[in-house]
Amino acid sequence: MSNNRTVSGMRPTGALHLGHYFGVLKNWVEMQHEMEAFFFVADWHALTSDFADPTRIKGFVPELVMDWVASGLDPQKCTIFQQSQVKQHAELHLLLSMITPLGWLERCPTYKEQQQQITNKDLGNYGFLGYPVLMASDILIYRPQWVPVGQDQLPHLEMTREICRRFNHFYGEYLVEPQARLTPAAKCPGLDGRKMSKSYGNAIHLGEPMEDIIPKVRGMKTDENRLRRNDPGNPEVCNLFPYHVLMTAEDRQAEIRQGCTSAGLGCVDCKKILLESLERFLTPIHERRRELESRPDTVWDILRDGNARAREEAERTMEGVRQRLSFDF
Amino acid sequence: MSNNRTVSGMRPTGALHLGHYFGVLKNWVEMQHEMEAFFFVADWHALTSDFADPTRIKGFVPELVMDWVASGLDPQKCTIFQQSQVKQHAELHLLLSMITPLGWLERCPTYKEQQQQITNKDLGNYGFLGYPVLMASDILIYRPQWVPVGQDQLPHLEMTREICRRFNHFYGEYLVEPQARLTPAAKCPGLDGRKMSKSYGNAIHLGEPMEDIIPKVRGMKTDENRLRRNDPGNPEVCNLFPYHVLMTAEDRQAEIRQGCTSAGLGCVDCKKILLESLERFLTPIHERRRELESRPDTVWDILRDGNARAREEAERTMEGVRQRLSFDF
Ligand code: SF4
Ligand code: SF4
Repeated sequence: MSNNRTVSGMRPTGALHLGHYFGVLKNWVEMQHEMEAFFFVADWHALTSDFADPTRIKGFVPELVMDWVASGLDPQKCTIFQQSQVKQHAELHLLLSMITPLGWLERCPTYKEQQQQITNKDLGNYGFLGYPVLMASDILIYRPQWVPVGQDQLPHLEMTREICRRFNHFYGEYLVEPQARLTPAAKCPGLDGRKMSKSYGNAIHLGEPMEDIIPKVRGMKTDENRLRRNDPGNPEVCNLFPYHVLMTAEDRQAEIRQGCTSAGLGCVDCKKILLESLERFLTPIHERRRELESRPDTVWDILRDGNARAREEAERTMEGVRQRLSFDF
Repeated sequence: MSNNRTVSGMRPTGALHLGHYFGVLKNWVEMQHEMEAFFFVADWHALTSDFADPTRIKGFVPELVMDWVASGLDPQKCTIFQQSQVKQHAELHLLLSMITPLGWLERCPTYKEQQQQITNKDLGNYGFLGYPVLMASDILIYRPQWVPVGQDQLPHLEMTREICRRFNHFYGEYLVEPQARLTPAAKCPGLDGRKMSKSYGNAIHLGEPMEDIIPKVRGMKTDENRLRRNDPGNPEVCNLFPYHVLMTAEDRQAEIRQGCTSAGLGCVDCKKILLESLERFLTPIHERRRELESRPDTVWDILRDGNARAREEAERTMEGVRQRLSFDF
């Protein structure tokens, strides 16, 4: 079966920042125009790490949807829904758990990696090991042809594809083996040059007001070898320049590069230009967000409609799944 | 919370035999009069081992319900339902998987045991390891006070109790920690003295016609030291006598014991008495079964009503579970 559909999700773990936008969301916004798209709030996934205190997840759900819609996802063009409200995911998860070899999960590179990296949370639970099984269910239940992934998430998608093949091997060709749609690697590093992350304190959030952003940009380290205003700079080693690449018009970028390397442009002025670019970029997002905040029902209406739409499609797949397992009673 | 409720299930894996009746079912029949009882066909559990060819499960489901009702379960007195038709079990399974330590499952004694014993099936799947999590969901979702278990199943129930305590520890006292109701150890060995099991070919099935049972009983080995009719026998080492204990009137049992040890009663006559007992025991079961078979809708009607009843109760529990996890959207 060939279609033109995509599925992807994000965990509700707090306000989104520019790294999320340029790494994932921008791509989603484009995809909604090119194909049938399902985007979900992965609230059950958030439990794999936040099971001990899940109360915050509840507030993060509408926040996430607001960030999405403010950034350009259009609920008329794509289906925005909440994983935990489409119970069929849990049913498929249970069925796929019966055919997924333990060894596949234990050898999953991201499993061991996360256990080593995240040391402040208890990740020794059954559900944490089974994370890829839940992810496979989330995807396969919509039988999409495409899944947007970054290069680093390829192993996870490969696991979904393997589980899909194993299902089809046992029960006949039915689930669709999704293909990776690699997201163009638009890197948006943090203010200090490391990966942008809330926990590093180096992020600009999509909802952040300009008055909070201004001092952050002013305080950014630029090319450390440019000690005086009259020294030429090197945009390639400057924390600021990648933001120009993402947000400043191309002809303007060329001017900046030229001005920096010839010492014609000072870092203070370069930062002013960036603040203009940031404001131009964030203003429509902030406006849409204020609009959503002023009518809090809107987000829940979007989710209600999206959940119903997703449920319908998930149930359609499950009918076929149950049939193939002879579980159609 | 204290109540007077019980939950138990059986896998649909084929016709039930006397071992099932005296080991489990007889107890269920009694319990339905003493408390609110939920009995379920564990069809999802059957997948943990039969995932590669699940088609037979479908036929075994109505067979199992017929065996239950023929044996005396009364759908007016208890709730008879099918696990896979109450999707809430899958949802709770997913949530409990997030809080169940892997180590608990890996150390589960029956897990290693089964992996060693069952060598003709692939038991290396994620779902097989998670069997106790599904079992915990099946039970806890009805918040019963009692779970009927044999001595050998105590470790499994203990795991359910531990998962229950862990849930209540994280999210507040809500799920009920069920207590073991130990089933009286009415042992019904197989015709050859080993454990009764279809795979040993030493079973008498509940639906088996007398003409098939007669040659089986005639062929049974009795006290092997009783070489001649005039030798006294010893009921304690005879494969036949345990059946008298289960099915022959007590005063009659005393006579048999006396006749055997004094060589007054021969094995051929002793077998005739047992065949009478078996016929007296099985006739009402066979009659009820023929009645059910003559109206095949009956079983599905029983399940439809029972599923609805179970769903209602399971959903009630899940509403509280979601609330406590702040997943009540
Ligand atoms: S002028 Fe701009 S690009 Fe060059 S070093 Fe300064 S801040 Fe960086
Ligand atoms: S008389 Fe009955 S109890 Fe005694 S050895 Fe024969 S079959 Fe067994």
